[in-house]
Amino acid sequence: MILFVLRTGSNSSTLREKLKSTSASFRFLNLYGKEVAVAWPDQEVENVKDESVEVVVKTKKSYVLAGNEWKKDPTIVKVRDVEIGGNKVVVAAGPCAVENEEQTLTVAKAVKKAGASLLRGGAFKPRTSPYSFQGLGEEGLKILRKASEETGLPVVSEILDSKDIEEFKRYADMVQIGARNSQNFTLLREVGKLGKPVLLKRGLGNTVEELLQSAEYILMEGNGSVVLCERGIRTFERSTRFTLDLGGMVAGKLMSHLPFCADPSHPAGKRELVHSLALASVAAGADMLLIEVHPRPEVALSDSEQQLTPDSFHLLMERIRALSHALGRSA
Amino acid sequence: MILFVLRTGSNSSTLREKLKSTSASFRFLNLYGKEVAVAWPDQEVENVKDESVEVVVKTKKSYVLAGNEWKKDPTIVKVRDVEIGGNKVVVAAGPCAVENEEQTLTVAKAVKKAGASLLRGGAFKPRTSPYSFQGLGEEGLKILRKASEETGLPVVSEILDSKDIEEFKRYADMVQIGARNSQNFTLLREVGKLGKPVLLKRGLGNTVEELLQSAEYILMEGNGSVVLCERGIRTFERSTRFTLDLGGMVAGKLMSHLPFCADPSHPAGKRELVHSLALASVAAGADMLLIEVHPRPEVALSDSEQQLTPDSFHLLMERIRALSHALGRSA
Amino acid sequence: MILFVLRTGSNSSTLREKLKSTSASFRFLNLYGKEVAVAWPDQEVENVKDESVEVVVKTKKSYVLAGNEWKKDPTIVKVRDVEIGGNKVVVAAGPCAVENEEQTLTVAKAVKKAGASLLRGGAFKPRTSPYSFQGLGEEGLKILRKASEETGLPVVSEILDSKDIEEFKRYADMVQIGARNSQNFTLLREVGKLGKPVLLKRGLGNTVEELLQSAEYILMEGNGSVVLCERGIRTFERSTRFTLDLGGMVAGKLMSHLPFCADPSHPAGKRELVHSLALASVAAGADMLLIEVHPRPEVALSDSEQQLTPDSFHLLMERIRALSHALGRSA
Amino acid sequence: MILFVLRTGSNSSTLREKLKSTSASFRFLNLYGKEVAVAWPDQEVENVKDESVEVVVKTKKSYVLAGNEWKKDPTIVKVRDVEIGGNKVVVAAGPCAVENEEQTLTVAKAVKKAGASLLRGGAFKPRTSPYSFQGLGEEGLKILRKASEETGLPVVSEILDSKDIEEFKRYADMVQIGARNSQNFTLLREVGKLGKPVLLKRGLGNTVEELLQSAEYILMEGNGSVVLCERGIRTFERSTRFTLDLGGMVAGKLMSHLPFCADPSHPAGKRELVHSLALASVAAGADMLLIEVHPRPEVALSDSEQQLTPDSFHLLMERIRALSHALGRSA
Repeated sequence: MILFVLRTGSNSSTLREKLKSTSASFRFLNLYGKEVAVAWPDQEVENVKDESVEVVVKTKKSYVLAGNEWKKDPTIVKVRDVEIGGNKVVVAAGPCAVENEEQTLTVAKAVKKAGASLLRGGAFKPRTSPYSFQGLGEEGLKILRKASEETGLPVVSEILDSKDIEEFKRYADMVQIGARNSQNFTLLREVGKLGKPVLLKRGLGNTVEELLQSAEYILMEGNGSVVLCERGIRTFERSTRFTLDLGGMVAGKLMSHLPFCADPSHPAGKRELVHSLALASVAAGADMLLIEVHPRPEVALSDSEQQLTPDSFHLLMERIRALSHALGRSA
Repeated sequence: MILFVLRTGSNSSTLREKLKSTSASFRFLNLYGKEVAVAWPDQEVENVKDESVEVVVKTKKSYVLAGNEWKKDPTIVKVRDVEIGGNKVVVAAGPCAVENEEQTLTVAKAVKKAGASLLRGGAFKPRTSPYSFQGLGEEGLKILRKASEETGLPVVSEILDSKDIEEFKRYADMVQIGARNSQNFTLLREVGKLGKPVLLKRGLGNTVEELLQSAEYILMEGNGSVVLCERGIRTFERSTRFTLDLGGMVAGKLMSHLPFCADPSHPAGKRELVHSLALASVAAGADMLLIEVHPRPEVALSDSEQQLTPDSFHLLMERIRALSHALGRSA
Repeated sequence: MILFVLRTGSNSSTLREKLKSTSASFRFLNLYGKEVAVAWPDQEVENVKDESVEVVVKTKKSYVLAGNEWKKDPTIVKVRDVEIGGNKVVVAAGPCAVENEEQTLTVAKAVKKAGASLLRGGAFKPRTSPYSFQGLGEEGLKILRKASEETGLPVVSEILDSKDIEEFKRYADMVQIGARNSQNFTLLREVGKLGKPVLLKRGLGNTVEELLQSAEYILMEGNGSVVLCERGIRTFERSTRFTLDLGGMVAGKLMSHLPFCADPSHPAGKRELVHSLALASVAAGADMLLIEVHPRPEVALSDSEQQLTPDSFHLLMERIRALSHALGRSA
Repeated sequence: MILFVLRTGSNSSTLREKLKSTSASFRFLNLYGKEVAVAWPDQEVENVKDESVEVVVKTKKSYVLAGNEWKKDPTIVKVRDVEIGGNKVVVAAGPCAVENEEQTLTVAKAVKKAGASLLRGGAFKPRTSPYSFQGLGEEGLKILRKASEETGLPVVSEILDSKDIEEFKRYADMVQIGARNSQNFTLLREVGKLGKPVLLKRGLGNTVEELLQSAEYILMEGNGSVVLCERGIRTFERSTRFTLDLGGMVAGKLMSHLPFCADPSHPAGKRELVHSLALASVAAGADMLLIEVHPRPEVALSDSEQQLTPDSFHLLMERIRALSHALGRSA
């Protein structure tokens, strides 16, 4: 595909006419304060020229909006007043699943106190088995909203289906697309249209390149607030639940302008491994971390093996801060 | 979980009352002519007894309805008058994507003539890249319906989102859930409720056990007409597009009463490999095959590398028949 | 690299001089009745011409002797009077490990009677754990030799280290290089020099391309009698021990002139799966099968879960014959 | 298996007699200043008792000597005066392959100056292709020895075959077993007998558990100086050469008393990724790093894409020191 970046303040109508006169597909959209047009396939539009165009990017990659050929500066995603992708390593913490108001408030206050910037919690839970706890649904989102109001922490929560868009519009500050929906293209488009910041997880069988292509679906709707998330892939190794692919994350950061989050809790599968993998993620360059914390992990309704206690999370935050400082960042 | 299989003609009301009086979750449903109740977790219900119950299955597996501890006989899934899971190896063939009426009718007639029993074709296409052809949507389903009427072949086509359920109700005979939606649990439930036969593909990063758990979501809605489909998993090998896991299929057949389909086209990625992998699938015990056929593969709008010509498909059908015969089956 | 195939009966001395005068590396050898020279890197030798040269093959592939750019006809490997790679599907069968003379003789007679063409048995056993049975060593080879003399079946057995070359020279008819030594380049070279037919297994973390490169080490010593063997790779799937990659085998057959063996026993890990995977391998085009058979699998000192009984093997041979016949081959 | 740890100064002869009188296999050896006996299978020896025994460890794990059930304190491996496994993060650096004396000396001096503690360099090179540079062999070892004498850095180099043991005895301070030989059990035993410290790499298709079992082969020869090395595994991801499995390393550290090295160069495959992965490895808890450095990477005879320049390595050492300090370690 070919990307036309328009001059600020220019009129796109003649370019639009020229593209219409070809048999190419094309789309105009605004991203990061620029009007751009993406058109494909190449052979139909490579000779199109127009005064309004500042830069033309013709790429052999499988993504262009998510790539850094046209946008060299790293993107900073704002979730209310929290900036992801800047100097500060942002930590989102909270329970795997919202179980009730008390549990959620307890965790929210604890992670806020320890230094987390965002509250994460699952309301709609994607569960491998229909016999597992499926989450509280909309009720869970309301509890998260309430915890957000009490603590001031913006809320990030996972959406499972486009029919729930309205609830997320009302109650969430950042919408997570989970690993199992990483190539649910309908959902990607709907969340793109919603316009809220998106935390897009890599599918457990997907390459980094495919993750960028999934992001492309969201950006193409004019929503540039996407944080990519490495959360472990499926491999033959059995001492961990998934294999956290920090090499993939580092490679991904060189391919894209988008910030990267790392989720050390899910690949660890065991709480003893979470600290080390969180620190490794920060050292590798993660802009954000997603950490599961539960007031009493041993009775958690999901992922009880890998959630940290508030005390352990507090200690982890201290270690993250020390490490970030040594790397020239804050946390 | 615990499965209660009720005596034919018995009244389930007392069992229902007993389960209500526990703190367990439970669900009554009809499957394969039996009324059954599934309840969980075990410790809440293991002492429940009732006159209406014929068999109790208490399993350590992560699935029960899809497993063969309660149902030893292989399930035969009927798509109109086509039986999948019986003696005959059923072949579904057609284009990767419905591109237009002529292309679809041409292929439909050719595969019918060659001996295919079902017409497969993509109307809604899940594409890794937003710049790839996304399918004709509802228009594609109508074309398939028309081709079905002309040839008598029932139609199988992939659904991408629960919002399209009505169109599939109207136009499709069998609904396919693709690899990328294999753990889209909302969609699994909706397709379960729809009641039409389902072709459920294994996700490219999912285990066979997870495939059975996904099937469990569908069965739990009372829809027992599920065909499982092996279509290749993600591995390090690069000479093929995906690694067709026939060992997983054979293991899956020993774990479940549901029939298995194999899709040799997608893992092959190259048309030269399709015949050999199709024959291997039949020899391994596949009850159904899914083969991509296009009148002119070289100009196909998707998967042009792996679609067979009608002539090549015709030859493949002859080979499948010879092989099936040697194995004591028909095709 | 560049391959020079010399005219039959021509004198290679002038070509040799010309290559010496470059700074290229080169090697002359005889393969399949032809004298050939392989030289590299390309830029040093691409202008070398000589009267003695019949064909020049310049390849971008990572292997040339094992590839089919210079040799289109399939190679037939002879192990005494058994031909692998021809019309007949050759079955090698026997115990995972030689445990004693009686066990080996019993199996050898049984598999001979059922129709096997080769006796396979492990004398030197590569075991993940030092606490597992390590094999009888040279004593095991002698037992195999004796069983071979009684039954007429040539013997194939695995070599673990180049220091044992002499014993294999004396007692074995075909030397197996196991999955864990697939990239033991010293051993590959030594077995190349030995000159006996080689059964080269794919490493559990190796690509098909790497398997061909390993074969190249053997061919480069002038030993063209190599049978490649697919035996399952490491993936995330857990219902089988390894994932038998028949797609990789089919792709490999299109890349090379060498025959392919499939080992369904090791990837299966469970005897219930062996028949189906053996039949699938034949349908996919395997020229040879390697099947583990033990008179009493339940007391076997290794791999007791996956070895077939003689009766089960007898039945399998009947099924293989029926299948091969349907495919236009014998067995 | 069962491990008997003997009292210091006790006489092992009665235990030896008792074990002889069973039908178990057993082995006496000295490790870490203790005399121990390992015996198997369990059922033959579980009732053996003797005065000389201080502790009995009966494990369900697949390894015992390499595990931490009997030895809780972390093992410190000494390579001359360099301690691996203590507070200091030890860095071994040098060229992928020794190409000539000048190149090696230049790098040795540069990495010494930058703060490396060990000189790594390849003399015998395991190459996927026979057409790649195979290393200088013994000549390379001599060059490394000379560079060691000039800089005071102990030498670590890879052995490919047990026939080269004598050369390594003479010229190397630490013997590396590479990924492709990680399950070359003959070589593991020979290197165990040699008695020099061993750097044991994980095979690209091996689990962490299998790595510990390979270490067990070395420990069983009475050689406890083993450093385990994570160097990336084979997965489907293609943006890096291998997938560095830091989760596996962290899990391995919880399973064993042996120190862990990480090799970020090989999985990176691209020099741009090496810094980030090296830092991530240290943050995850690596006791040692293996970094490829070449005076002019662009003309290197092997792995030219991933070797660092001396300047880049100098900067990396500064970053490693800052990070180690933040983690309470030195470097």
